[in-house]
Amino acid sequence: MVGAGSAVVNTYPLSSYTFGTKEPKMEKDTSVADRLARMKVNYMKEGMRTSVEAILLVQEHNHPHILLLQIGNTFCKLPGGRLKPGENEIEGLKRKLTSKLGANSPALVPDWQIGECVAIWWRPNFETIMYPYCPPHITKPKECKKLYLVHLSEREYFAVPKNLKLLAVPLFELYDNVQRYGPVISTIPQQLSRFQFNMITTT
Amino acid sequence: MVGAGSAVVNTYPLSSYTFGTKEPKMEKDTSVADRLARMKVNYMKEGMRTSVEAILLVQEHNHPHILLLQIGNTFCKLPGGRLKPGENEIEGLKRKLTSKLGANSPALVPDWQIGECVAIWWRPNFETIMYPYCPPHITKPKECKKLYLVHLSEREYFAVPKNLKLLAVPLFELYDNVQRYGPVISTIPQQLSRFQFNMITTT
Repeated sequence: MVGAGSAVVNTYPLSSYTFGTKEPKMEKDTSVADRLARMKVNYMKEGMRTSVEAILLVQEHNHPHILLLQIGNTFCKLPGGRLKPGENEIEGLKRKLTSKLGANSPALVPDWQIGECVAIWWRPNFETIMYPYCPPHITKPKECKKLYLVHLSEREYFAVPKNLKLLAVPLFELYDNVQRYGPVISTIPQQLSRFQFNMITTT
Repeated sequence: MVGAGSAVVNTYPLSSYTFGTKEPKMEKDTSVADRLARMKVNYMKEGMRTSVEAILLVQEHNHPHILLLQIGNTFCKLPGGRLKPGENEIEGLKRKLTSKLGANSPALVPDWQIGECVAIWWRPNFETIMYPYCPPHITKPKECKKLYLVHLSEREYFAVPKNLKLLAVPLFELYDNVQRYGPVISTIPQQLSRFQFNMITTT
């Protein structure tokens, strides 16, 4: 049994990070229907998809913010993606973070510190809806998505693909905002509520 | 940093527990206005209120259920309550659980195993609304409410106050049901999603 004390997470000001750009990372699918069709083909070949996503925290105005990638004008997602069959979750998330946000020069890529798993979502069918549990009677879920806290150092360089925007979104903007951010991202504030944020303001 | 492996929680069938009754435990307030007024008086005397609530898990049909106390026909709450000034959270939650659900005979009272803190909610003002973070610019929150997982043994006896009903509510009923259960209880499925439930079916 884990102790009852709350875990401490250090956060640093957004201004302590540096943001550059790199070549575009295009989405593999151009529609939801395409995405679900590709998911089905991959499921036939490889079985259940496991995806891993990162919660990268910064702070502004003494309040935690999460880094989200914005595609087009409205759709936001956490950095991460699908694991290769048999790939380790932690190593796979590091690979995905480097692909999405790491500089082309390896020396500039952050040493990703993957922390606590804060939520797990299940996709029972080849549909967009996911649940924070595997629904009863579902013996073959199609996807399992795990959200991990990633502990950033005080200074990092992020290279953002030119077709995407990287946004720092405050918890109070995500909370209770399922219309804008969807069920997975809009309940991140509840999942993080158990952590004590140690907001360091050295800059 | 906590390891990335997910924590395992043993759950037992609802049928392995025994339920009796005991004397009524009346609510201290008969209206929301009364409740907020009493909260204000107590705040003047004792400062910020800290309350602790328990998530007691059982299983039915291979799916986790949470025990909720129902007052009247619709309102549901987690067992728990307000700490005394300076009281330890774990000891205070045990005291509240015994008061709400323990038998009058001490030998029958469960040995409450208080586990992980899964969520913390803040009340910025003497109002009903709470947030899963302390909002920016709020320097004197009025209440901090902590939800703890409580690990039940395979056999327990619960004594339910005669004016209350004890319900075992499945996660799929709570999920996305803020209308019926409110923001705190309806997002418990998300907060529990990171745990792996080891559903033991010995009976």
